Order: sequence, then C-alpha cells, then structure tokens
Amino acid sequence: MADIFDRLLKNYGPIGQHRERAHGYFAFPKLEGEIGSRMKFRGQEMIVWSLNNYLGLANHPEVRQADADGARDFGLALPMGARMMSGNSNHHEQLEAELAEFVQKEDSILVNFGYQGMASLIDVLCSRHDIIVYDAESHACIIDGLRMHAGHRYVFKHNDLEDLEKQLQRASSLIEKQKAGGILVITEGVFGMAGDQGKLKEIANLKNKYEFRLLVDDAHGFGTLGKTGAGAGEEQGVQDQIDIYFSTFAKSMASIGAFIAGERKIIDYIRYNIRSQIFAKSLPMPLVIGNLKRLELLRNQPALKEKLWENALKLQQGLKERGFDIGKTDSVVTPIYMKGGVEEATAMVMDLRENYKIFCSIVVYPVIPRGHIIYRLIPTAAHTDEDIQLTLEAFTAVKEKLDAGSYKTNAIPDMAERK
Amino acid sequence: MADIFDRLLKNYGPIGQHRERAHGYFAFPKLEGEIGSRMKFRGQEMIVWSLNNYLGLANHPEVRQADADGARDFGLALPMGARMMSGNSNHHEQLEAELAEFVQKEDSILVNFGYQGMASLIDVLCSRHDIIVYDAESHACIIDGLRMHAGHRYVFKHNDLEDLEKQLQRASSLIEKQKAGGILVITEGVFGMAGDQGKLKEIANLKNKYEFRLLVDDAHGFGTLGKTGAGAGEEQGVQDQIDIYFSTFAKSMASIGAFIAGERKIIDYIRYNIRSQIFAKSLPMPLVIGNLKRLELLRNQPALKEKLWENALKLQQGLKERGFDIGKTDSVVTPIYMKGGVEEATAMVMDLRENYKIFCSIVVYPVIPRGHIIYRLIPTAAHTDEDIQLTLEAFTAVKEKLDAGSYKTNAIPDMAERK
Repeated sequence: MADIFDRLLKNYGPIGQHRERAHGYFAFPKLEGEIGSRMKFRGQEMIVWSLNNYLGLANHPEVRQADADGARDFGLALPMGARMMSGNSNHHEQLEAELAEFVQKEDSILVNFGYQGMASLIDVLCSRHDIIVYDAESHACIIDGLRMHAGHRYVFKHNDLEDLEKQLQRASSLIEKQKAGGILVITEGVFGMAGDQGKLKEIANLKNKYEFRLLVDDAHGFGTLGKTGAGAGEEQGVQDQIDIYFSTFAKSMASIGAFIAGERKIIDYIRYNIRSQIFAKSLPMPLVIGNLKRLELLRNQPALKEKLWENALKLQQGLKERGFDIGKTDSVVTPIYMKGGVEEATAMVMDLRENYKIFCSIVVYPVIPRGHIIYRLIPTAAHTDEDIQLTLEAFTAVKEKLDAGSYKTNAIPDMAERK
Repeated sequence: MADIFDRLLKNYGPIGQHRERAHGYFAFPKLEGEIGSRMKFRGQEMIVWSLNNYLGLANHPEVRQADADGARDFGLALPMGARMMSGNSNHHEQLEAELAEFVQKEDSILVNFGYQGMASLIDVLCSRHDIIVYDAESHACIIDGLRMHAGHRYVFKHNDLEDLEKQLQRASSLIEKQKAGGILVITEGVFGMAGDQGKLKEIANLKNKYEFRLLVDDAHGFGTLGKTGAGAGEEQGVQDQIDIYFSTFAKSMASIGAFIAGERKIIDYIRYNIRSQIFAKSLPMPLVIGNLKRLELLRNQPALKEKLWENALKLQQGLKERGFDIGKTDSVVTPIYMKGGVEEATAMVMDLRENYKIFCSIVVYPVIPRGHIIYRLIPTAAHTDEDIQLTLEAFTAVKEKLDAGSYKTNAIPDMAERK
C-alpha cells in the first residue's frame, strides 16, 4: 500500500524539481518597490516585462488614492459572508452595472478570482448532457472547469475553424441522438502565451449553421482591444455574438476578482447558482471601490490604451527589425521564440538579469517541447522609449551569445535564496 | 436540439426560483455600517447573527489601522502575477511562516480563497489511483474538489467511526488489488451548519490500523478552539496527527484568503504544483499585511476567544433553558432546530427582522428536508449581554407564534428591492 505523500515527493513537478537551486530566482522571485517599468529584484533595479499591468493603472495616482481611501473607510473585512447570504452591497451592484455597460451586455456578476470564477462558470452552465467544444490552447482555468464537467468535451485545434466545424458536427449528432443537451463553445479573446486573438468573428459566423452558445475568456483583451476597450469581441465587431463574456481584473484592471457578463436573465441564473460564489466570501469593499476607479480610468482615459499600443508596436516592430521571431501575435502580448536547451535558457535569463537588468518571463521544456525557448514580454503604458531601446539592445546581445554557443553549460546554477 | 440557456432558465434553482419576490431581502441582503453586533438592514438597526466575525476582529481598531496602512503604502494591485512567476514577497513568506508556527506545523502556503484553495488542494494531492474517504457532511469546497478527482471516493456517514472503518477497509482492499495509490481521509474541524466537531481524535486513532493521510478543513475551529486557538486538532489533542491542516481567513480572521499547513516537504510540493495558485494572481499585499495583524491579535489577545466563548455559552445555555433544540453543537456555532413549512419560516424571519430587529440566517426546504427549519446563529466576541438577552426573548416570542400557527400564510410576500 502506497503513501500519498511518498508518491508526491518522488516528483516535484516540472518547475518544482529545480526548486533547490531555483527558489527565489527562477521561481517565486520577488519584485520590490512600486509597480512600474522599473522594479527591484534582489536589490538591483530592472526593466520589468513580466506584469500584466497593461494600462499602467496599478500605480496610477487616482487608483492608489481610491485603494487607500476604500481601505481606510471600510477596512478589508467588509462585507462578510457570501453575496447571497450577507455579503451584498450597493458598491458591488454598481460595479456590476458599470462593467455590464462597458462590455455592452445587459448585466454582470462579480466573481472572486478569475481562475475559480471561470471553472465554476463552466460548472454552472453545463449539465451532463451538454457538450463543451473548446480551443486546444485554452487557459488552465478553462481546463479545470472542464474537469468538473460530467458530460462530453470535444477539443478543436487552436483557432482552426475547419476542426471546430468538425467538432460541432460531432457534437450536434450526439445531442440529436441523446435527445437532450446543448453545445457551449469556449475560446479566448487573446491567447496569453502567443498573443494571437481567438477567431471570434469566424466562430460567431458558425452560429448560422450550428446551434451553440459562445463563452469567451477575454482576460487579455479587456481594456486593451476594441474602440472603447471592451475587448476582442469589439475589436472584431462581434461583441453582441458573445453570449457569455468573461474577464479577470488581474490584467488591465491591475486588481483581483473577475466578472461574467451577458443577458440579464442568464446572469441572474448564474448569480443564484454559481458554487464558487455561493460558498465563498464576497469580494472585499476596498477592492470593489478600487475596481470602480480603475474602470472609470479605463473608460475615460483612452490615452492609456493608445500609449500601451504605441509601446507594444515599438517593441514588436523593433524586435522584427532585429530579426526576432515574434510569431503570430495580434495583441500587445509579445512572445520571442528562440531555440536552445534548458541550460542555455537558464544561463541566458541570468545574463539578462545580472548584466542587462532585464526581468522577463521565460518558458522552456517540459512546459513546451525540448529545444524551444519562449520569452514573453508584456508591454504596458508605463514603459518608456528608453526601456524599449535598452531591451531591444539586450535581446540582440544575448541572442548573439546564444547563437555563438556561449550559454552552453552543464548545470543549472544554484541561485536559491533559501536553504 | 436544446439551447443551454433555455434549459437553465426553466429552473432558477432552490433559492433563485424565489428571486422575484426575495431579492435584496431573503437573498442578497445588504448589511450596512461597520461590522459588529448591530448593523443596518434596509435602514433599520438590527442585531446581527449572520457573520463569522468570531473574534470581533473585522472592526478592531488595530486591524482597521493595519488595513488602511497596507492599502495606503502598497495599493491593492501589488504584487502582480502568480506567486511563482512574479507575485512573491517577504510579507507573503512571513505570513506563511507565522501561520505554520501558530498551527504547529513546519510550513504553510497561502491560497487566494478558501473555496478554490480546498478544491485545488484535493486536486494536487491525489492521483487517479488514490482513494478519498470523506465525511458525508463535507462543505461544498471539498465536494467540488472531489468532482475534479479522477479516482474513487468513498463517503462515510457523518462522524460515524464504524462506517469510516468500513470505507477504509474497502479502500485498502481496492488499493491492494490495484497495487497503486493511497488513501486520503477528509473531514472538518467543526461542521459549520450543526456546529459539531469532527471526531479527529477517533479518526487519528485509526491510523494504528489503516494507512492514510488526514486532511482537516478547520474553517470554524481556527481561532475559536484549542488552548492557543490553533483549532479543533489542538482542542482534541491530535494536532500532530493532522497531515494537512487547512483554514480559510473568512471566519476568525475576518478577511479573505486561506492557507494549507503541514510538513515542509509536502508544502513545498504543493507550492510548486497547486493549480489554483500557479494560474492565479497572488493575494494583494494589504490583505497579507492585514492578515499578519489579525494573526498577531489572535495569538496575543486570548481575551477575544474567552469573550467569544462567554457569549456563545450564554446564548446556547439561554436557548436550552428556554426549551430550544440546539442539537449537538460543541463549538460556538449555534443552530436552532424548529419544525414548520417554508411559508411559516419566511413569515417568521420577516417578523424577526421587522418587529424584533434580529437578523440571522435560516435554512429551509429544499436545502434540508421539507417541514424542517434551521436557524444558524454565529455569536462573536463583539456581541453584548443585551444583544443576547433581546435575542433570547425574540426567539421565545416567535417560537410561540410558530407553535400557535400564527405564521401560516399561503404566499411568500414580495419583499424584492428591484423589479
């Protein structure tokens, strides 16, 4: 008979296996100081490209004031209990009304965190007869929602309309046979790793041929895409075809929490039945007040989105001119694709941090196939031309070293800050 | 072919079906003003028994100061990103270390919300070969964690040691046959509805006969039970037998977030692999700072716990003397069991609120069997003798009316605050 702990401790997982040498440096690093394009990492100032503070709202003076005032006036405890039992307030309802209007929907409901909100949303929408058809590159919160779904789920190849149609046909046939259930299609407004938008327009067009409801996780589109910032649906002219619109506050809003928007009657259904909210404390008042202020700025200061895009295009254009492969991004998310081993990637990241003072996120094997390296840069409205210029120069320098084989070492260095 | 929305809108669920008449009154009520034993509901001051503010920390001056200072100094955005990627800080690590010490474990890890933390904890601990043996009255967050589990789950009758042994034998046999997997037993320190403690001591004793790991959700025990407030395990003298200790901050701590504590090596495993944290933003700094202050008070002001128990015992003793059935509670959670229909319960709650100015939670059919009514009173350190006295008198009065049939009406009154 096996002990559960014994089994777990045999394999600490893709990142955990390196924890002895990596903790505090490659994993669980601490970025200190005010959120902005420059922050401190282990005492040194770095240009930071890892935070989804797209519009620079995290440290906007009006946001900081609202956050401080809200906590001073209400404390972080209020309200207590779940919304349904004892945790409701006028502020929560006001934020829901304003969010709904902003994304051009009738109503919305707040959820406490993006991850749990999405997982629980899928759960509340689908019965065992319903079939979920979802994009292969869906975020973990969608995948974990699918894991709670007792019915069928059909995956379609990432942004592949032909394969989506195939899955819709398959789902439609099964539902006809079952004589029960419907279809929920799930995709994202912007895929957070590669930065490509979900093909919302083309997917919405399929509603002419197949009957389904469309749920879009627009975490990276909200506030960054569309004329008014209402996201990828607005950008592609199909916001009204999105039956359930979802976004977290963890990106453009620089906060926590998330929301679900749609027709009033379906939002009301969700409000009374979504388990992650019925069985969890309401979002604290200062976060609601802080999010009201963030939404106000997002609505009334289009210059922030313009500055974000100006920076994103300078960065992306600069990288392309220097010969970097940034893939198929059509959002501000900026990946850089390189080839190399885990050890080379590790040495390169250290070189970037220690010698070029650039802090950014990297993905390597076993998260992606062996031999591939993906950097992921998140430009924000808070970055400066100098930040961009220094970063372009740094990447040019480290790429030359990578190509010359300078990063070939045999061991991951010991950078752990704890023993 | 059915439309998903059409199906959902046919049945708004046990509480949602009454929303047209109940919204804002029976469901989604607003309690306004500072958190305490008296708050405003629809403009009237009420004695409130619905909030798990056990130690009265929500509105403690030092807590309010810490909450205000934290938000002023750091804003509510910091840190951004998941702990593992970019959202770590010294404060988060300090809170983890202090929590671990307080509950007598080697290490702990913060999670963002109790609900999502528990569901994801079960997910990270168990593989498909592991068998989960759990109490039948487990909270929804445990049930939803089980729903993500691909392997077997065996339920044992609530706090029934004989049935637990039967399930452990069954699980042990299957694991022997499978030649893989282990057993995780899940129970609670205090069951939040009935207020009875989980039989942790007796369950722990079974480790002499069966091999399993024990996970305890001590949401209601943390801060309220045990010599130092370390919870139900300390109260029963078996804190060291709890392999994974879990508690939310939503009760005694009057905050949001939760934590998982245990042996350092297993906490490290969880830290690097728990999906609800790897794929979600870190807990905002002011919440961490506010929770450090709350923990300090919880540790250093035993008078708060003493006052809580003094109030709880006055309330429970008073109810028993007046002939009320409060069941088998051995915690501060105080249920009152009555018999009556949904309409009677509704009229009685309205009478309590409108005429006696008592606000408390009630559970009726279809959540519990038809004909039963359960009130659930949560005494706190903030309640006064007068609060308790008025409440005892009010319950005596409404119970007499209930027994006299005065609440028999035919319709749920329309109390909705929105149309």
